[in-house]
Amino acid sequence: MGFQRQSESRARIENYLKRKMFPGARSPMSLCLIVVVAISVGIVHAEPSSDVELDEKAKANHRLDSLNILVYTILLSLTVLTIWSFKHRRIRYLHETGLAVIYGLIVGAIIRYASAATPYFHINVVPQNGTEAFNQSVPPDALWLRLNKTYSYVFKGEVKQEESKLIEQKATFDPEIFFNILLPPIIFNAGYSLKRKYFFRNLGAIFTYAFIGTTVSALVIGGILYGFVQLVPTTAQFTFIDTLYFGAFISATDPVTVLAVFNDLHVDVNMYALVFGESVLNDAVAIVLASAIQNFGEEKTTGSGSQVYAFWESLGVFAWTFSSSFVIGGLMGCCTALLTKFTHVRDFPLLETALFVLMSYSTFLIAEAADLTGIVAVLFCGICQAHYTYNNLSRDSRLRTKQLFELLNFLAENFIFCYIGVSMFTFPKHKFEAFFILAAFVAIIIGRAANIYPLSFLLNLGRKHKISWGFQHVLFFSGLRGAIAFALAIRNTLSIERQTLLTTTSVIVIITVIVCGGSTNQLLNWFNIPVGVDDEAECMQLHMRSADGSGADPYVEGGIPTQQDRALMARWWHKFDHRYMKPLLTHSRPTLLETLPVFLTPIARLLTTTEQLTQERVEPINTLSGEPTFSQQFDGQDHMRRV
Amino acid sequence: MGFQRQSESRARIENYLKRKMFPGARSPMSLCLIVVVAISVGIVHAEPSSDVELDEKAKANHRLDSLNILVYTILLSLTVLTIWSFKHRRIRYLHETGLAVIYGLIVGAIIRYASAATPYFHINVVPQNGTEAFNQSVPPDALWLRLNKTYSYVFKGEVKQEESKLIEQKATFDPEIFFNILLPPIIFNAGYSLKRKYFFRNLGAIFTYAFIGTTVSALVIGGILYGFVQLVPTTAQFTFIDTLYFGAFISATDPVTVLAVFNDLHVDVNMYALVFGESVLNDAVAIVLASAIQNFGEEKTTGSGSQVYAFWESLGVFAWTFSSSFVIGGLMGCCTALLTKFTHVRDFPLLETALFVLMSYSTFLIAEAADLTGIVAVLFCGICQAHYTYNNLSRDSRLRTKQLFELLNFLAENFIFCYIGVSMFTFPKHKFEAFFILAAFVAIIIGRAANIYPLSFLLNLGRKHKISWGFQHVLFFSGLRGAIAFALAIRNTLSIERQTLLTTTSVIVIITVIVCGGSTNQLLNWFNIPVGVDDEAECMQLHMRSADGSGADPYVEGGIPTQQDRALMARWWHKFDHRYMKPLLTHSRPTLLETLPVFLTPIARLLTTTEQLTQERVEPINTLSGEPTFSQQFDGQDHMRRV
Repeated sequence: MGFQRQSESRARIENYLKRKMFPGARSPMSLCLIVVVAISVGIVHAEPSSDVELDEKAKANHRLDSLNILVYTILLSLTVLTIWSFKHRRIRYLHETGLAVIYGLIVGAIIRYASAATPYFHINVVPQNGTEAFNQSVPPDALWLRLNKTYSYVFKGEVKQEESKLIEQKATFDPEIFFNILLPPIIFNAGYSLKRKYFFRNLGAIFTYAFIGTTVSALVIGGILYGFVQLVPTTAQFTFIDTLYFGAFISATDPVTVLAVFNDLHVDVNMYALVFGESVLNDAVAIVLASAIQNFGEEKTTGSGSQVYAFWESLGVFAWTFSSSFVIGGLMGCCTALLTKFTHVRDFPLLETALFVLMSYSTFLIAEAADLTGIVAVLFCGICQAHYTYNNLSRDSRLRTKQLFELLNFLAENFIFCYIGVSMFTFPKHKFEAFFILAAFVAIIIGRAANIYPLSFLLNLGRKHKISWGFQHVLFFSGLRGAIAFALAIRNTLSIERQTLLTTTSVIVIITVIVCGGSTNQLLNWFNIPVGVDDEAECMQLHMRSADGSGADPYVEGGIPTQQDRALMARWWHKFDHRYMKPLLTHSRPTLLETLPVFLTPIARLLTTTEQLTQERVEPINTLSGEPTFSQQFDGQDHMRRV
Repeated sequence: MGFQRQSESRARIENYLKRKMFPGARSPMSLCLIVVVAISVGIVHAEPSSDVELDEKAKANHRLDSLNILVYTILLSLTVLTIWSFKHRRIRYLHETGLAVIYGLIVGAIIRYASAATPYFHINVVPQNGTEAFNQSVPPDALWLRLNKTYSYVFKGEVKQEESKLIEQKATFDPEIFFNILLPPIIFNAGYSLKRKYFFRNLGAIFTYAFIGTTVSALVIGGILYGFVQLVPTTAQFTFIDTLYFGAFISATDPVTVLAVFNDLHVDVNMYALVFGESVLNDAVAIVLASAIQNFGEEKTTGSGSQVYAFWESLGVFAWTFSSSFVIGGLMGCCTALLTKFTHVRDFPLLETALFVLMSYSTFLIAEAADLTGIVAVLFCGICQAHYTYNNLSRDSRLRTKQLFELLNFLAENFIFCYIGVSMFTFPKHKFEAFFILAAFVAIIIGRAANIYPLSFLLNLGRKHKISWGFQHVLFFSGLRGAIAFALAIRNTLSIERQTLLTTTSVIVIITVIVCGGSTNQLLNWFNIPVGVDDEAECMQLHMRSADGSGADPYVEGGIPTQQDRALMARWWHKFDHRYMKPLLTHSRPTLLETLPVFLTPIARLLTTTEQLTQERVEPINTLSGEPTFSQQFDGQDHMRRV
């Protein structure tokens, strides 16, 4: 009907224009006239566009999105302010992540119980040409609904029957956000701020805990829970694959709270390296393990080959995924190093930083797109960036990158913990199984113990300086569960089993973070772990100086040989790194001209920069002897900064 | 069938456990046994979880998402490298945004024509209980499809009939991303890096161009196009509201390329202020105008009241939206200033920066959630942050915030331009109307002219130093269309009219950016605009010094009175600002104790900090006389940095 009146008006104005002004329609004057007439006629005969309602709908959705994100920004602001006041008052019985969770829980409860029920308008549909028209095992990607127009609807997931509020559905995010947006900076920052010196020194122990330990704990947890669901059947039909999968991803520890306390107290650096290194690596291992187990499950469905075959194949998948992700991460790190070494992009810190960020993020994406594990790739990419690229960056970019990833890490982490809190109440797919949760708690404690104590015993057989009981206990207690486990759990909540696992994970994360987060101080006292260690303090001073721009920085010391350097692997690696990798990828001495055999001299000359030849030999601390050359180019940087 | 075998195995193991070990099931020993047995039995009898296919689907989607984002990260990296090499070789005939667009076009074409057609599995559905079951004017929010399980599908939009490739659908993003994620940092950075001194000095001219000018240009463009579609009917049924809406949002200029050149050449600061200020404000005006026009259209549908009533109401909407967004932005800026002034959060730059970012972003969200215009709010918030908060920040945070938003702005801007390029080929909802596009071009040129020249003439009647013809021409040519127009156009593509408008906008943006972007140099020469102005250069040195951490910075000079300060409004504002706002919101002198009347002394004392009393009077440049007190707290900052 609208269209009809509209066409009338068009007809009228067309005649009008023909009669009055079409003859001279080409001259600017008449153009102006057309404008005036058009405006006046338009005002009078203006018709509403046919999609006003859709606009309204779009606007309403947008308002809700904004409201939804706003909730979290306010939550985070609150958290930040509280953290400050806690730090200000030296309060340590609750860590920031604990705070974030608690605030999240409160707000979640409010949204759940206080917000009015906004009706969520959905209708039930049936396939146009019968349910048999397509393979029923997988729902279609999209539905096309033909009304006056054809509208497309995209697959969202399985729904429980009871109605759920719109705002609740809105207070949740697409789980992919955690994986594509929030986790990468966290993990990258872990690698980028890794104290590599002590990491390499304890390489053996860390690898043992990370690889063997995580596998053991996954098996133990999976086994216990499978045993449990056999004894106490739950509504969810858990298979061994399910419980094993849970065991794998719940074994990803997140010692953020513990490490925070370590930082404040300058705890013994080896302790720090053990806890940090172990947790960083076991995240990676747990993720790969989980995907391997999933693959095992799928193998068995498709039913190709025997159990044993599938089992070994999964082992193969694990090895392949981990190693190739590792390689991708390393390669991308080296690419960035080469780019920053051989181009002069450092003249424009903004561009340099942008490039650094983009390369690092694409590492993650490449791995994910190749069906490998982005987390692992980005972790090792971060380590490479810190080890090589960092030395090629302009002083300005060093600061920028450090501070940027520090900020991103902070925001992402606290956001996730807020979200864990809120989603406990608002996420529509929670499935509580009290007994299962209890069993899971018992299981992870046993699993953690089965990881730390036996392995420490074995390690101590080979180690010069033993891992003391105190260390072992701290390691045991630092096995909190956090962001990674949650992100893995929420990633797929299509079946009731998965929903139960998500709920269990959430509860475990919340409790461990709040409870263990506060108790770390006491632990350190009980197990008298040395605190206030000089080396750490020194590091901090360096870091401080570097932070206010004078250039000295603690990250270059990574991999410098020391007497205590015990691990054979570490020593071998350091030698190779010092002779070939660093000269190739950074401006450091000795150059390849000195290290490569004579017959390769032409190549070596090609790969050696003038900066490398002009500067004197690099020492761990004053690596920035090349600075002056950079600072000459500051006006160049400055152009960029103001573009 | 799977379930059947599974329950068998469960029965078997239950008996087994009962017989063998239930008696002692409580002792840890037997627990371990349960584990071992469970594992072994589990391995043998493990059943695939029932939702393997769904996992597969989820994984496939995730791979595609990653691939999709990867395309853009690689595009951006390429752009960055090319920009560098261009800057390195002092090439100016093409600006970075132009580059981004071109790369985008190339990749878009490749995706469109080279990628294999991955079948996108959708089925047609009909409402379970007949089409009449619900109000047909609006499609439902969601569809529930009952198969073996119930799956929910969420509304995505209208579809054209022909099949489109999965990768294509994947290479596009939810338009809300532009509004909630990409535009805010761009606009905020515009406000945060605004040279307020010259902005205020030309306040009158800028406001005239922004408010009156944009309205004029919107009317002219809308009128011309409406006239055109009357003469040359298109398939799309354009109403006057549609064309006027187009006129409004296409009037948002984006002189990023022009300003870039200005920066490199240190063009005359008043010229810079005019172009920058006008473009920044007219974005805001255009957006509000567009929403007001939309509202006008909706008024007319709902049909409440007459044309005239609706018209005046829309004017009211415009005034209300703009002013209250302005107020929200200002208030949030002041809140941040107060927070940073009266708390010692500056002891922890990381927290401070996080707070700064969160507060600024929530400004945007608050405005959007209140159905106002976030862009306007965040713009004025940015100006306030630069004007007040910036002075309270620790030296470290000043750098962090500046560099962070600079980086975000850079990435967001180039991403949008890449996206414009790619989406030209991959966005499924493009609707080409060659003649309409041509008409639109003519219209925007006439519209821009009708904006600049008459208004400049009127302004020159009142101005001491006239706006020269050269200036006017540059203003005219700097009216490129960019990110804002595109973001507004792509926000709603539900109807064919909107799709045509989107395509037209994309084409206009691409052509103006590529063509005008390069020609700015020539323009400046032709119209002999003074370049290499000292004041600018001086600013740059300051900025430089501030950038390498010595603290001096050019942003504090904003609003300092000078002889040339002409605009009455500006003078009045400066006085008020200097006497009341700055003393209240920053640590600057004079304090409120000196400026407020005596009887308010207690309040004044309450609102005056010790820093304020202890430091000497603040001069534009050495505002950081308070630094020492900060740097004493550096170890505090450092804790944070390493958390």
